[in-house]
Amino acid sequence: MELSQHKEDLTSLNPLFYPQSVAIIGASDDPSKSGYQITRNLLDLGYVGSIYAINPKKDEVLGLKCYSNLLAIPERVELIIISIPAFGVPDVLRQAATRKDVRAAVIIASGFSETKIPERIQLEKEIVEIAQQANIRLMGPNCVGVMNTENHLDTTFAAGIKQVRGGMSVISQSGALGASLLMLASSQPVPMGFNKWAHVGNQCDVSVLEILRYYGDDPGTHVVSMYMEGVNNGREFLNVAGEVAQEKPVVILKVGRSETGSRAAASHTGSLAGSDEIYTAAFNQAGILRVNNLEELLDTSKAFAMQPLPKGNRIAVLTEAGGPGIIAVDELGFAPYVQMPDFSPETKEKLKKILPPMALVDHVKGYVDMSAAAMEEHHGQALAAVLDDPNVDGVVFLSVPPTFLRPTALAEEVIKVCRSRSNKPVTVCLIGGEFVREASQFLELEGIPTYDVPDRAARAMTRMVQRALYLRKLEVSKEATEDDIKAPAGERGRLVIAEALATGRNLLEPEACQLLSDYGINTTPSYLVKTVEKGLEAANKLGYPVVLKIVSTDILHKSDAGAVKVNIQNTEELLAAYQEILANVRSYKSDASIEGILVCTMAKPGVECIIGVKRDGQFGPVVMFGLGGIFVEVFKDVTFRVAPVSLAEAREMVQSIKGFPLLNGARGRQVCDTESLAQMIVNIGKLMEECPEVSEIDLNPVAVYEQGKGALALDARVILAQPELKDVTK
Amino acid sequence: MELSQHKEDLTSLNPLFYPQSVAIIGASDDPSKSGYQITRNLLDLGYVGSIYAINPKKDEVLGLKCYSNLLAIPERVELIIISIPAFGVPDVLRQAATRKDVRAAVIIASGFSETKIPERIQLEKEIVEIAQQANIRLMGPNCVGVMNTENHLDTTFAAGIKQVRGGMSVISQSGALGASLLMLASSQPVPMGFNKWAHVGNQCDVSVLEILRYYGDDPGTHVVSMYMEGVNNGREFLNVAGEVAQEKPVVILKVGRSETGSRAAASHTGSLAGSDEIYTAAFNQAGILRVNNLEELLDTSKAFAMQPLPKGNRIAVLTEAGGPGIIAVDELGFAPYVQMPDFSPETKEKLKKILPPMALVDHVKGYVDMSAAAMEEHHGQALAAVLDDPNVDGVVFLSVPPTFLRPTALAEEVIKVCRSRSNKPVTVCLIGGEFVREASQFLELEGIPTYDVPDRAARAMTRMVQRALYLRKLEVSKEATEDDIKAPAGERGRLVIAEALATGRNLLEPEACQLLSDYGINTTPSYLVKTVEKGLEAANKLGYPVVLKIVSTDILHKSDAGAVKVNIQNTEELLAAYQEILANVRSYKSDASIEGILVCTMAKPGVECIIGVKRDGQFGPVVMFGLGGIFVEVFKDVTFRVAPVSLAEAREMVQSIKGFPLLNGARGRQVCDTESLAQMIVNIGKLMEECPEVSEIDLNPVAVYEQGKGALALDARVILAQPELKDVTK
Repeated sequence: MELSQHKEDLTSLNPLFYPQSVAIIGASDDPSKSGYQITRNLLDLGYVGSIYAINPKKDEVLGLKCYSNLLAIPERVELIIISIPAFGVPDVLRQAATRKDVRAAVIIASGFSETKIPERIQLEKEIVEIAQQANIRLMGPNCVGVMNTENHLDTTFAAGIKQVRGGMSVISQSGALGASLLMLASSQPVPMGFNKWAHVGNQCDVSVLEILRYYGDDPGTHVVSMYMEGVNNGREFLNVAGEVAQEKPVVILKVGRSETGSRAAASHTGSLAGSDEIYTAAFNQAGILRVNNLEELLDTSKAFAMQPLPKGNRIAVLTEAGGPGIIAVDELGFAPYVQMPDFSPETKEKLKKILPPMALVDHVKGYVDMSAAAMEEHHGQALAAVLDDPNVDGVVFLSVPPTFLRPTALAEEVIKVCRSRSNKPVTVCLIGGEFVREASQFLELEGIPTYDVPDRAARAMTRMVQRALYLRKLEVSKEATEDDIKAPAGERGRLVIAEALATGRNLLEPEACQLLSDYGINTTPSYLVKTVEKGLEAANKLGYPVVLKIVSTDILHKSDAGAVKVNIQNTEELLAAYQEILANVRSYKSDASIEGILVCTMAKPGVECIIGVKRDGQFGPVVMFGLGGIFVEVFKDVTFRVAPVSLAEAREMVQSIKGFPLLNGARGRQVCDTESLAQMIVNIGKLMEECPEVSEIDLNPVAVYEQGKGALALDARVILAQPELKDVTK
Repeated sequence: MELSQHKEDLTSLNPLFYPQSVAIIGASDDPSKSGYQITRNLLDLGYVGSIYAINPKKDEVLGLKCYSNLLAIPERVELIIISIPAFGVPDVLRQAATRKDVRAAVIIASGFSETKIPERIQLEKEIVEIAQQANIRLMGPNCVGVMNTENHLDTTFAAGIKQVRGGMSVISQSGALGASLLMLASSQPVPMGFNKWAHVGNQCDVSVLEILRYYGDDPGTHVVSMYMEGVNNGREFLNVAGEVAQEKPVVILKVGRSETGSRAAASHTGSLAGSDEIYTAAFNQAGILRVNNLEELLDTSKAFAMQPLPKGNRIAVLTEAGGPGIIAVDELGFAPYVQMPDFSPETKEKLKKILPPMALVDHVKGYVDMSAAAMEEHHGQALAAVLDDPNVDGVVFLSVPPTFLRPTALAEEVIKVCRSRSNKPVTVCLIGGEFVREASQFLELEGIPTYDVPDRAARAMTRMVQRALYLRKLEVSKEATEDDIKAPAGERGRLVIAEALATGRNLLEPEACQLLSDYGINTTPSYLVKTVEKGLEAANKLGYPVVLKIVSTDILHKSDAGAVKVNIQNTEELLAAYQEILANVRSYKSDASIEGILVCTMAKPGVECIIGVKRDGQFGPVVMFGLGGIFVEVFKDVTFRVAPVSLAEAREMVQSIKGFPLLNGARGRQVCDTESLAQMIVNIGKLMEECPEVSEIDLNPVAVYEQGKGALALDARVILAQPELKDVTK
């Protein structure tokens, strides 16, 4: 699917979010029915379009004239909300098709494909067919639909949600959790606004991806906040979310972080669980901010919705009390990409002048404890001094207003300072429950986000830094990626793969080497020979010592068969080894077909690494890098990226493993040619992109040599997808 | 300090927490003064004793008759609260001494030793002397003192704190943070009660440790909750807190978790920062529950205050909505010591019968998603079924009550079930803001703790499991520790240490070996010889090959001096090596004193480990264990415990490192004699306890051999404390 194709279709979602009129099928005045609450919500929230109630048993519902069916409505109906049992849905859609004015339907009803009952799966197919022919977009079934604060639309039956308009738009893979998020949002000091909200249910037509795209293009949406359990098309999800993330923050609570949680998530949404570490890697690559819990989802979204991004990563902490200050500094310390600033000498001077003598100024770098003696004006003046420092990119501001200090006066000081310095972000934590509630409200009404506890104020700030750094990286990465691939695209690997597939087998070692070599991945130089004379010739070309190995589709474990001879020093040894291998193979499996014998250079030992690539069920080709042996097996010291991987990302991979010092001269070791490793990672990613027939490659070990001397895949295993499995690995 | 001595003295703190009468020095009717708010609090909260106001400028304060000074009060005064400038404090205390009835004073005033000004330090000494002579206990100065909900005492000037009585007692090293904690507590669905509260300030007399002890003995205190920045006597703190933790939960938010945070903490309290990983290890050993933030401190304390401990670690999750359920399962999954239970077949049968067909029962082990179709009675019946299962030790219960379900009715169902099954803990999260507020209140009034978000409900439960497991471990550890130490206590190491100290030097290698050997720690067998003949004799006894090393107080780096010869195979080689070493030493340092030459067995290579022990500034001897070389240097794969270490703890140390599989047969390796390593850890801990002169030992490497073949310290460095440094290492 091309993104560009879909961009144009997004207008087809307008009737879902901006309908001129809405009809509720199953409108009711019985408070125990969804159709009651849906009607109630539309009326009470003040939906700006026309509302039509449909219920054959009623003349009136909640003051609305009631129609017996959809066809009976004389006015134009753009969106229908279907809240009747599943088996009645097709008829309603047929009526909608007949009317020709209905452009979209939200199907609240459940009892479709999610039951996994064949009859119900069929029912879902039926409604999709009716809708497609009539050009009606379907949301659901088994969903609660959408909310939009611009026109006060609400198709859900959630009670008590206040429609305060704001910059956050929500997508949730759980209706209950999506509603919970709004309830938490509305219990902020100032009820936190949102722009749009969606729960897509079974996604029989409108999908999470389309909503994401829609939010991406939506001028009213400044932050996308998502609750996610899993997706089945992770690669496409990444493309879409990544594209949106270039424009606006995408903050996702992806559950299934622990192993059992992951199983629970899979059982709920029916989506594939997927490896959590691959999710994290993929989200990072796409610039998606992954948060760990509901509160952090809200805290982060609030900061983005209210504040500008920091220009850099230097965050100061300004506090009135030591305890909260330390908690905030602790939290910043956990984000390795955040620095506490070096205040300029002028700033330190100013602060010392402004603040009471008990204040601690820059005792710890970038940290000011104004002390409990600080009055309102001290708070304001100190904040101004810190914000004015060119070495400061953002401030976490904390106060436990003492009894004698009016919290609202303090808030006004902060507001005054921030108004004239709106280019740097500030997050605030005033502690004191009811005592500071009004002050927090003052701040939030001015767009300064407040948090109940200092660590949450600090964490929201680190997320803003994370995004600022991502956007900067994006700028840098616009430089072209270096390419070191030999054969022209189109020729690469085609022949060897075709031949192997034709004979229904995986690649033989020389074929694998050919394929890798076409993609610029160095393997041990070698020749496949069929006679001992050719073998001698090959060894002379390569230079002794050499290695001989059998090449046979019938021998999987070459060493077990005595079919590998290493460290062959001269002609005599080669002659003997050649015959010995043939004899061993015959006695191991008398009818083994023999393609020949591979004569290879005997590679020098280097530091052993492992580079692997697999097609992940959700994200497609995923590259792994690590040190070999115990480092991967015992310490799991590996890192993942979704391919394609840029050279910059590949370098980051190599540097990000814990064992990196072992490649970089630790304990008197040599500094290795990590640039060659990075290039190998880039190339193997490219290979996987261009050769869909390849399902898995293991380069293990890859020997990396000292700087300038390159890296060599000493053993390469290339697995082709079996035709009958092809679709699962895409 | 012996704990037992102090136990009796705890009654001297009674006048602080249970005074019959209180006098406020500096009582005021000016709302901008502390003395106003203190008087206000005592009056408004309804303190049960007599209150006397002292202010020479007033006749009446807030309706209380005002006395000109302490001596003017005709009635008995037990506790005085001093809220006047620092320099007035000695006089007040002298008056108190004259009266003879005053038993304790809370000194709110600041401006003493915390200013680090010599004059002010002296002032603090002065007040301590006056008080000691008069047998008056002092709390502070620079503190806000105590609260007690039993008699409605409040010496603080914090405004707006509700005195709801509960089982939690608080100690805070920050007045602001301690007050914040109570404010957060009072914004729970039902204001969360506390029993006592204390902020000790400068601790010129009453210390954190005494308060801890007092809470430990206090029948009204069921949970001790502490905010901690650092202590200077970590070892004693551990002893006290550990003793309390055997009786009741001790939950501590210790800040300074990141490196910068740790520096900020040290600058605030003036206490030593200390290594955060040693704090964590020490807290674990002492059974102290360390939490990560204020909210978790409260969440955990609430669970302990309200619910029974689980009997085991099998925690079920029962939810009405998938999203919240997964979040809870995720959280449990992060606690490696928590298991989700195997429901009995009867339970599964019951649940399937009770719940709507859409429910997912045990789809994931120990997890039930009741589905959105679950009504009130389903919630109750399912909870009963799960609690009745003998395989379940506790339940995390979650619901996003749908619009049609009355949350309070649901809460009543839960209460009914829990009332008759009060032996297993339940934590609850109802989501829905105001919509569920009343239901949450119902639950909390019945002692069932509720949480805003599912992960916090789950985390509180994991903390209860952690405590249950600690108490079980405590039971088990009452079995005697095996002891493998050779020399009788009293003789061990005394001579070699005394000799080295007498000559002002560290231990020579053979002395270090002697000391270690006295403590059952095997080093390479060796003889110190002074002639080549004795050398030959020694080699014959040990058997070839051997190693020769110089023993000289003047040669620190033996290899650099050419003073080590390894792999000596026979008499000839030994004769040559002996002479060569002597010659090399002479040319390296012509006047080097030579104690002799050490002839050692050439040890077989084993798996290299490292065992080290140091005296930590706060916790005294701390043992470290890890694999040697790159594993400690690059991967930092090490673990710490405060000594003495029991054999069970030592085994746990060995098994807890990431690289443990390398000692345990991974990748075709041999299974090593980890029991010998554990014993070596126990023994080195004992050595440090008994030999205060030793400040540091490094056994690096320790070679461990296959099972039954033991472990050998191949190189041992023992550092003695220099006399002038002695006090800092205690």
